[in-house]
Amino acid sequence: MTFHYSKKAASMRPSIIRGLLKQMADPSLISFAGGNPDPGAFPVEQIRAISDELLRDEASATLQYSITEGYPPLIEAGKGYLNREWDVVGEGDGVIITAGSQQVMDLFSRLVCDEGDLVAVDDPAFLGALNSFRAYGVRLAGVPLQPDGPDLAALEAILAGDEKPRFFYTIPNFQNPTGAVTSLEKRKAVYALCTKHGVPILEDNPYGELRIEGEGLPPIKSFDRENAVVYAVSMSKVLSPGMRVAFCVGQQALLSQMVMAKQGNDVHTNLWGQRVCERFLTRCDVDAHLARLRGIYREKALLMADEMERHLHGKIHFERPKGGMFLWATLQDGIDVGTFVQKCLENKLAIVPGSAFFVDESAPCQSVRLNFSTPTKQQIVQGVSIMEQVLSEMQQGAR
Amino acid sequence: MTFHYSKKAASMRPSIIRGLLKQMADPSLISFAGGNPDPGAFPVEQIRAISDELLRDEASATLQYSITEGYPPLIEAGKGYLNREWDVVGEGDGVIITAGSQQVMDLFSRLVCDEGDLVAVDDPAFLGALNSFRAYGVRLAGVPLQPDGPDLAALEAILAGDEKPRFFYTIPNFQNPTGAVTSLEKRKAVYALCTKHGVPILEDNPYGELRIEGEGLPPIKSFDRENAVVYAVSMSKVLSPGMRVAFCVGQQALLSQMVMAKQGNDVHTNLWGQRVCERFLTRCDVDAHLARLRGIYREKALLMADEMERHLHGKIHFERPKGGMFLWATLQDGIDVGTFVQKCLENKLAIVPGSAFFVDESAPCQSVRLNFSTPTKQQIVQGVSIMEQVLSEMQQGAR
Repeated sequence: MTFHYSKKAASMRPSIIRGLLKQMADPSLISFAGGNPDPGAFPVEQIRAISDELLRDEASATLQYSITEGYPPLIEAGKGYLNREWDVVGEGDGVIITAGSQQVMDLFSRLVCDEGDLVAVDDPAFLGALNSFRAYGVRLAGVPLQPDGPDLAALEAILAGDEKPRFFYTIPNFQNPTGAVTSLEKRKAVYALCTKHGVPILEDNPYGELRIEGEGLPPIKSFDRENAVVYAVSMSKVLSPGMRVAFCVGQQALLSQMVMAKQGNDVHTNLWGQRVCERFLTRCDVDAHLARLRGIYREKALLMADEMERHLHGKIHFERPKGGMFLWATLQDGIDVGTFVQKCLENKLAIVPGSAFFVDESAPCQSVRLNFSTPTKQQIVQGVSIMEQVLSEMQQGAR
Repeated sequence: MTFHYSKKAASMRPSIIRGLLKQMADPSLISFAGGNPDPGAFPVEQIRAISDELLRDEASATLQYSITEGYPPLIEAGKGYLNREWDVVGEGDGVIITAGSQQVMDLFSRLVCDEGDLVAVDDPAFLGALNSFRAYGVRLAGVPLQPDGPDLAALEAILAGDEKPRFFYTIPNFQNPTGAVTSLEKRKAVYALCTKHGVPILEDNPYGELRIEGEGLPPIKSFDRENAVVYAVSMSKVLSPGMRVAFCVGQQALLSQMVMAKQGNDVHTNLWGQRVCERFLTRCDVDAHLARLRGIYREKALLMADEMERHLHGKIHFERPKGGMFLWATLQDGIDVGTFVQKCLENKLAIVPGSAFFVDESAPCQSVRLNFSTPTKQQIVQGVSIMEQVLSEMQQGAR
């Protein structure tokens, strides 16, 4: 039988990156393409001990159905965790647990967007979020991302336009794909602009804890006196992505609607992951774990940056990473990015062309996104060497 | 800030049952309202041993991101499990893993329904599925459920109507809420009618393994030469609902679309649950486990039926359960169901009015749904006694 598909189905797109990940069964392939945590960053012994304790002492409660909002002790633990440095869960806000922050993107756009509606987004932005919004048939309005955050004039032009966007999606910390950090001034300005125009903000903060140096900046959510910000914090990068656990903070009225939407979507988030996460946050030394995590990523990020400066100087331009998992690298004019990506793949290095992350994927883009969290240090060195070799072959071919 | 909500959001409804479950923090309340497995039915020792082995030997692989389709060894194991008795995964079919079968309801309706479209459903039917469809703004056409399955004349009238439904949703085994089993003849007739009219079938089989006696009947999916049936099999009732793991079987083209929709929804199903499930299916004696499970539910089902016959004879009519988790009981005319449910709750017994499961919730309904899997045997006896007491008070009050 041939199925009839909805208009929404026609607007869905596969993720180029998750497609690449499927190819990665080939163990000889080096991947700078994904965004997997370093396996050494998982607190394996702690998780194993917690899990065994749960399945020994509270097995039935861990294997049973739970409530849609999330495991209540994890919600409480989450409030403490999220409010360690800044007042993120404020007056009038609640917290629910979702199956990764991807589900926040999905449920929030389902709740506030009709087909054809406009959504403003960082441009470029996290592809998974864009595809999640596109799946509801929305149109995306890109706000160009500058090294210090969204272009405020462009944002205001969209907010003040004839058609008000349903929300503005942004990652202020170590943005995916660019690694950009939105400055404190711009965070405040984004909040002021959006609330002035009555447009909610969907603030995604998966990488905030993965800073390489210095102090973190307060999330936009911490300025939110109007309950206008929906704030998603995934535990994938700090604990385990396989668990599929994230926190969503937002105004109570919205969260009630999200719970209703989640009931019909997956009933509740898997309980083992929620309970392991709760015990991890309440019984383990979270700060020590995060310090260890930062050490792992700092070392890899600096290694990739150093290798690129050493071997690709003048051929690829990039900002040294400040945190997160990605380095955004721009090739010299005249080098065709599609050919470069293809030749790297032929030489067993997977990277993602920057165009994949733009609202208009067909616009010219000289950049690629390089991930430093997944490859080993040896693979980082090898991968940069493959890029060097491919670039030099392309330049010779061009002569 | 006041949020703008989508048309879809306006058509979402909370689950009366999940609302009731939240009240159940009161430990003195007896619940015939939910649908939780008996905690004694979880194979705790096996799950604990498997989990510890996974976190000892393959921790990083268990905690890492995975592919959207599902953990490949679980897909393979699922094919074997699903095809034990009948050829369920047929030529041209594939299998993906979802976060419970609720996610199949959600993703399938997202893929094939536009707002305003018609969907045919068992009437009454599983409330979670109805709410999942309603969340996409569809209109529901109820096919009255008879003791041997859907009313074929009513089904054909809907299929042959001016507006073709996007699919027909049905639970042929121990239906929720009625406990009805669709006869073999009707299974074949439903398949023939739907394929004749080009309407796909969404066959939900969460309770198939929980039969009390005799042999099971082949799923509609096993007749499916046209790849017209999407078949959902939850592991919630046979292994653990907290894990949120289900199989979805369907034609490859549809599954590719579902994978794309799932990418944007939750990236992938939690990996610990998938891997535990895989080892359980491949290394444990699944038949012995299912036999034990059937023993637990048989005992509880028969106890509830016996107690009701003994204490409520002539006051409540019901069919003795053949399997599953529910008993559908119809009160004498003249007894107001709403008052009965309310007075039971005041006496610390939660039950769900049958009207909650109908497409038209406001139509008169003299039935209630009673769950026998969650309460203990002592609670079953007490609960029936509360119903007896409430009924006798109501009858005295009416005199």
